[in-house]
Amino acid sequence: MTDDNYQDPNPTRERFSFSISETDGAARTGEIEMKRGSIRTPAFMPVGTAGTVKGMLPENVEELGADIILGNTYHLMLRPTAERVYALGGLHKFMNWQKPILTDSGGFQVMSLSDLRKMSEEGVEFKSHIDGSKHMMSPERSMEIQRLLGSDIIMAFDECTPYPATYDQAKDSMELSMRWAQRSRDGFDEGKDHASIAALFGIVQGSVYEDLRETSIKALSEIGFDGYAVGGLAVGEGQEMMFKVLDFTMPKMPTEAPRYLMGVGKPDDIVGAVERGIDMFDCVMPTRSGRTGQAFTWGGAINMKNARHKEDPRPIEEKCGCPACTKYSRAYIHHLIRAGEMLGSILLTWHNLAFYQDLMTGLREAIGQKRLKEHAEQFRADYARGDIDPL
Amino acid sequence: MTDDNYQDPNPTRERFSFSISETDGAARTGEIEMKRGSIRTPAFMPVGTAGTVKGMLPENVEELGADIILGNTYHLMLRPTAERVYALGGLHKFMNWQKPILTDSGGFQVMSLSDLRKMSEEGVEFKSHIDGSKHMMSPERSMEIQRLLGSDIIMAFDECTPYPATYDQAKDSMELSMRWAQRSRDGFDEGKDHASIAALFGIVQGSVYEDLRETSIKALSEIGFDGYAVGGLAVGEGQEMMFKVLDFTMPKMPTEAPRYLMGVGKPDDIVGAVERGIDMFDCVMPTRSGRTGQAFTWGGAINMKNARHKEDPRPIEEKCGCPACTKYSRAYIHHLIRAGEMLGSILLTWHNLAFYQDLMTGLREAIGQKRLKEHAEQFRADYARGDIDPL
Ligand SMILES: [Zn+2]
Ligand SMILES: [Zn+2]
Repeated sequence: MTDDNYQDPNPTRERFSFSISETDGAARTGEIEMKRGSIRTPAFMPVGTAGTVKGMLPENVEELGADIILGNTYHLMLRPTAERVYALGGLHKFMNWQKPILTDSGGFQVMSLSDLRKMSEEGVEFKSHIDGSKHMMSPERSMEIQRLLGSDIIMAFDECTPYPATYDQAKDSMELSMRWAQRSRDGFDEGKDHASIAALFGIVQGSVYEDLRETSIKALSEIGFDGYAVGGLAVGEGQEMMFKVLDFTMPKMPTEAPRYLMGVGKPDDIVGAVERGIDMFDCVMPTRSGRTGQAFTWGGAINMKNARHKEDPRPIEEKCGCPACTKYSRAYIHHLIRAGEMLGSILLTWHNLAFYQDLMTGLREAIGQKRLKEHAEQFRADYARGDIDPL
Repeated sequence: MTDDNYQDPNPTRERFSFSISETDGAARTGEIEMKRGSIRTPAFMPVGTAGTVKGMLPENVEELGADIILGNTYHLMLRPTAERVYALGGLHKFMNWQKPILTDSGGFQVMSLSDLRKMSEEGVEFKSHIDGSKHMMSPERSMEIQRLLGSDIIMAFDECTPYPATYDQAKDSMELSMRWAQRSRDGFDEGKDHASIAALFGIVQGSVYEDLRETSIKALSEIGFDGYAVGGLAVGEGQEMMFKVLDFTMPKMPTEAPRYLMGVGKPDDIVGAVERGIDMFDCVMPTRSGRTGQAFTWGGAINMKNARHKEDPRPIEEKCGCPACTKYSRAYIHHLIRAGEMLGSILLTWHNLAFYQDLMTGLREAIGQKRLKEHAEQFRADYARGDIDPL
């Protein structure tokens, strides 16, 4: 008997397939087909940390063009717990989001947020940052949690190698992650019902060392995954180094599977990574910066707290069709942010997510028309230009 | 030449009229017609303190059935300032709400929120609680500010007599408010363009003293206002005393004009006040309590933080059609509130505003069908019943 939570959401659709409709240099555009919907690539996944994209109703996230969102295993396992989400019918039902969900493995946040960590070959022992409760995280447990959540794309449990790392540190860490990748694969496959409707991605490690990245890619390819993420980037190495690592890593990646750059990034990071062949992104930037008063425009990011906006009747971004831009002035949003009003965070989050989806739409179209180079150069020129002149 | 901000929003509609379609005992139901729309009475006005109903998009407030919202003169005069709102086209345009807006006079919040107040016959000198800046508030200035905001229903500037007050204190305070009422009338009328599309309400004072309330009503009626508010209640006297004051005050009020009970209240306060002949209400309760985890149900108010909800798949209120109740479980909303997620405040605010509008719809229908007594008794019996049993 199939568990209700893992009933096939759509028997007429494939479990997982990736088709590339066009390439332009190293860049590709296409579509991932999954049971709960298609994901147009290159794709940006809004982050729904604790079962909510902060400040947004899920239907509005969907309307902006998001085909998939990300959930954080670490946060959800601690509160409300994966077991409770499972008992309530899974994360899709819990948070009222019916399209695909990708969950991270929890490893990154166990290392960055929890207290009193103890690493071993087995996994990581840690204490919750919320209530101090003790937990053990391992490849097997991470697969179990992501399965309880009912995630569509499960990430292998790995160690995100800190930056900087010596060659030996990076090698040891990558090799541990590769052993964990095999255990993740086995753990995922054991949950047969769930495995028949979901996908598993491996994560390439190796820090800034070309041969380690190559070794990692080979190890993962031998195990076999539905998609491959580039891990251990956007951890303080800077854009130049990140692009350098992508420059030597991407040509070695399997071409037929989606490639996911975790935790990236600023709009110009995304454009550069798409040019280098990345298909998927996630980042808290549009949501988090929305809550702190930052808005993205085609002329660069602007701070809505700045007094220059206080009497400006114009929208944040003339070219944007989001509610913040079509219904409200910069002056109003400036007022809301200054007054600490929730609606300020809501409207800026909305706008920033719209901006990121518009950015991805533009990139997909440019690749489809084989004019990515000009498109990217125009984007960078505009983005360096700065905000519109005061009235 | 008419000021652009005061152009007639709808020449085919009357400036202000109130028609009572049915009465039931002291209660009445009907409609206020104004330039920017009709207000079905008894009406509940959501509070949009600083140019936003906290956590809500205005279109969603409207969808719930709100025909009018309230703005706070004190907050808006300090930030973003009435002059800036005026320069940006008025409060309706600023906050994207095209239906009527009622603004309070600022008097109540000058006394409760500001620093270093100095009262005189002229008005009140005070310092802003935000930045310490000095301001003078008077009937004339209050009328000017409410006009700059472009408010549809302007409240006379009065002193909200504190509770408790001795007879002599209440008499002096009420008499001052009556002199200020005349100055408010004169100040309002001087803004001719605005006065031709807006309405002015007077405020009855007199604390708990029947003859003072009567004197106040006579004074206001002689000046002449579009509507009459009962002030100086819901300031700590308790429901029993409030109803007692309404019991002797309401029969003396003009019957042909709307009657507004300021700052009230809990659902059972509203039901009791409607039974006594009140037509309009405002209160921060549905919005404020939404942000602190409280939800209104027909079985009484419940605290969504309570652990009893943590695994409950049922909606907050089975009979509610709001997004919080139709799309989410109590368990999910409990989780959001516990995790401090903005969406928890948003959904609870949404639900509570829906509940208040449903409450008013039920009262209007019951009066229309002359069955208010049974309706109110059923409401009170249900409301005392308590929450649904745990599963
Ligand atoms: Zn926008
Ligand atoms: Zn509801």
